[in-house]
Order: sequence, then C-alpha cells, then structure tokens
Amino acid sequence: MLERIRIVLIGTSHPGNIGATARAMHNMGLADLALVAPRGESRSAEAISRASGADKILHHAPVYDDLESAVADCRLVVGASARSRTLPWPMLTPRALGERLPAELAEADARVALVFGREDTGLTNAELQRCHAHVHIPTNPDYSSLNLAAAVQVLAYECRLAWLAHQPTDATPEADPAPAMPRDAEAEAAKAAASAEHEAVFGIAWDHPPASHADLERFFDHLERTLIALEFHDPDKPRQLMARLRRLYMRARPDQMEINILRGILSATEKKTATRDPGES
Amino acid sequence: MLERIRIVLIGTSHPGNIGATARAMHNMGLADLALVAPRGESRSAEAISRASGADKILHHAPVYDDLESAVADCRLVVGASARSRTLPWPMLTPRALGERLPAELAEADARVALVFGREDTGLTNAELQRCHAHVHIPTNPDYSSLNLAAAVQVLAYECRLAWLAHQPTDATPEADPAPAMPRDAEAEAAKAAASAEHEAVFGIAWDHPPASHADLERFFDHLERTLIALEFHDPDKPRQLMARLRRLYMRARPDQMEINILRGILSATEKKTATRDPGES
Repeated sequence: MLERIRIVLIGTSHPGNIGATARAMHNMGLADLALVAPRGESRSAEAISRASGADKILHHAPVYDDLESAVADCRLVVGASARSRTLPWPMLTPRALGERLPAELAEADARVALVFGREDTGLTNAELQRCHAHVHIPTNPDYSSLNLAAAVQVLAYECRLAWLAHQPTDATPEADPAPAMPRDAEAEAAKAAASAEHEAVFGIAWDHPPASHADLERFFDHLERTLIALEFHDPDKPRQLMARLRRLYMRARPDQMEINILRGILSATEKKTATRDPGES
Repeated sequence: MLERIRIVLIGTSHPGNIGATARAMHNMGLADLALVAPRGESRSAEAISRASGADKILHHAPVYDDLESAVADCRLVVGASARSRTLPWPMLTPRALGERLPAELAEADARVALVFGREDTGLTNAELQRCHAHVHIPTNPDYSSLNLAAAVQVLAYECRLAWLAHQPTDATPEADPAPAMPRDAEAEAAKAAASAEHEAVFGIAWDHPPASHADLERFFDHLERTLIALEFHDPDKPRQLMARLRRLYMRARPDQMEINILRGILSATEKKTATRDPGES
C-alpha cells in the first residue's frame, strides 16, 4: 500500500528540503517521489546530504512541468494547505486522510498523491482546485509555517500508522521484535504466552513472566517480617503502611525476576540484622 | 498544557537540528526546549536559519551538563528510543503518549519531559534507564534513522493533537484555540482535573501527587548505597541489578508518600547496619 502513495513537491526552492523529504518518506516506508518544476538543483550535494541514505528515492524521482502530469495516474489527489481558501473545499485532518488510504488503495493499481506547495507561497488556487480534498496539519495559529519536509514527515507518519493498523492482527508490523524472543521455538512460544500478560500492560514483549499471586503474597509476608525486624513497622500500630506498600508493588505488576531480587534484598537485610544481633547483646 | 512539555536534546552534533527542532516545537505550540551538552554551537547562524522565526525558543533554551539537571522538576520523563534494548522497558507509541498527557499535566505545576538522544548513537542505556517509559516512532525496518527534528516533529504533533482533543467540544480548535477557554474556566478545569492526574495511569483519583524526577533519583541513590552496605550489590559487578530496580519502581510511578516510605525503610536499614558495625568489629 505505502509504495502506491506518491509525494508530489511543487516548485521547491531549497534542494535540502527535497533531500529531507526523501529521508522522511523512506523512514515511513514511502518511495514514490515526484517533483514539479523544482526551482533549485533538486539533486544537489545538499539534497543528497539531507537525504542521508535515502538518496535512491531522490535519484528515481521524475521531474514534471506541471501538477497535471505528475498525478495523471492517481485516483485521489490531496493537497496540503495551510488553511482553507476563499472557496471551501473538502478538508481532511491528517488522521482522517490516513484512515481513508487502505480503502482508497485496496485495488492493486490504485495510486494516491499527496501534493505539497512552495516553501514561501504554498499551492496556487489553480493547483488546490485540482485536488479532490485538502489536508491541513493543525499548527499553532501564531506560527503556522511548517517546514516542507516536516509536513511530509507528519503525513507520511499518518500513512504508516494507517498501514500498520490495516495489517492482519497476527502480523508483527513493528519491524523486528524477534531479538526480544529466544530462538528456540518451544521456548519462544512459552515465553510469548507468558509475556502476553505484561504486553497488555506495558506495550512490549517482556523478558520474564509476571510473578504469580502466591509469589507476591510470599514477598509481602517476607517484607512485613523484615520491616518488623527493622523496627520500621509495628503490627499493633499498622497505620496504612503495608496497604500502601502492597498498592505500590501490585501496581507495578512485578515479574518473577523482580520478585526474586526484592526477596534477595530482604534476605540480605535479615542476615545483616540477625548476624549482628549477638554482637549487640 | 503544551507549555509544560519540555523537549530535551542530548549531545546534539548539528546546530541545524537544534534550530529545526525549535521550529517544529513552535509550529505545534511547544516552547520549553532544554539542551544537554550540545556538541556544536547551539545558537549558530545555521541553527537560527533553520529555526526560521522560532529562534526565541532557541535563545531561551537553557544548557545543562547532564540529563538529571534538565529533567529534575519533571514528573514524567519519556525517552525516544529506536528500539527496545536488552532490558525491556515500558514502551509507548507516540499516540498513546499524547493521550496520556492531558491527565499527566492536569495539575498546574506538572511538567513532562520528552528526551531525544544524539544523532548518531541516540540515548545511552544509563539515560534510557532514567526514563519512566520509552516512546518509539514506528519506522521502516529497513531504514529507521529518523532525523532528530523530524522525530521531535512527530511527537510534538501528537502532543498538539492530544491537546486539541482535550479542548471543550464546543470550541473551534483549528482556528484560534486561545479564546477557547476563558481564564476562570481554565483554572477551574485544571483544579477539577488535578484529582484526575493519576487517573490516566491508575484509573482512579489519587491521594498524593507523583514524586518528582529529583525525588526518584535521590531514592535510587539511597537504594544503591543501602544495597552496597548490605553487600547485596557490587558496583564492580553490577549485572543489571540497578537497571531492573529502576525499571520496577519507575513503572509504578511512585507518589510522594510512597517515596517517603521507601526512603524511611532504607534509613531504618542503614541505621540497623551502622549501629551494629562496631559490635561486629
């Protein structure tokens, strides 16, 4: 889908912006760049430097004389506009644009163009009127001039999010989570199952399974004994001490390794206290 | 809300990126930029040129020696990370980060820091471990190196969307958000929302405000000293002990009372250990 989204830059003055656009596109998985009447040398050293490894996109970008030719094969053409002009036009937010793309690009040969104007004056009214819709990136009303490549970055980001959301749910769209998991398939499956619970909480595969309820309770018993030995806790005047500690630790959903560490600390504390008791008496 | 989101750039090499970051911030209504040990001249002609009118942000940006000092007053510190490191850490998408901010910033003096690393090497593990959570911008797995200012642009955009979504529905957020809330109503809303601060995190109104970053760091220092005294921790063979403990406690977002309790336990432990040392020798 992403390869059929074309970024069209019209009348760009600064080659650095073309390079930075190529980089922003490549980062988000887009590859189809078209230039309309660029005003500088679009493949200058500065453009290539700012493309930072994405210069393949730059070198492949065709140059057209006008918008018409650049978007002739596109089914949907959306123009980036700072604000609505005199004549109201269908207006999309970047998010709404992204959400429309999977359906727009469902057919294998469907193409969509996102059109960006000049750094200084944007798109002309004639160009805007060649668009099916306009997209406006919400900006600070006191300072609305987005850098060209920054505007491309935001829209390309929304395109990528829409594409990721459209992947089958069993896919792993986020690149390469593999290193988080052990290689061995069986261990991997077990670990995946174990970490699923933490994943819901933390949004990431976890390295150790969550501690069981019984592990947690043993930890709280151990903690309370230790706090009594430290004379920090008086069970006859409990205040809310144990309740507050329970709330803190349970909120964190400790994993098995973390509980082992916490219990190790408690044992070390008990040992220091115990071995020194005779010395004290 | 947006004015209390701090963008922290660590060890930036290219002043142009600092300028472009200032522009991206100003476009999205952010204003609080902090620089940690920039490697170039952060207010160079190139930086000012790339800031393109947003150079006020650049000139006001304080320069710090380390991350600690730059985020000491922040309650939530989120580090931008290309991918999860060896030790998994709570991970947010840019969108989930944005959605959390209105509640995180409900209290009038609450601040959040978004931390960005060096152009070449990102954030160090030590820096990442000072963050409550990491945020990862989804990128093309074949080409994941986002330009620094482009990464700031994407996160600042999500911050702005979250802020716009949080405005009263009868407002017209796109045009001129300033008058959307009269001053009185704004103060009242902030007050009412203050109890909701932890609510996004814990799903319930909370009894104590969250501990600041500085409070947390003092706790971690104290914890490490105590673990060394207990001979549980050897700084020469750290394994991942402190990293795992940091991850556990930062995940729980301790409130001020909880940090007081934890430090009280550490003091009680130190006292027992110290008073018995002479008896042992």
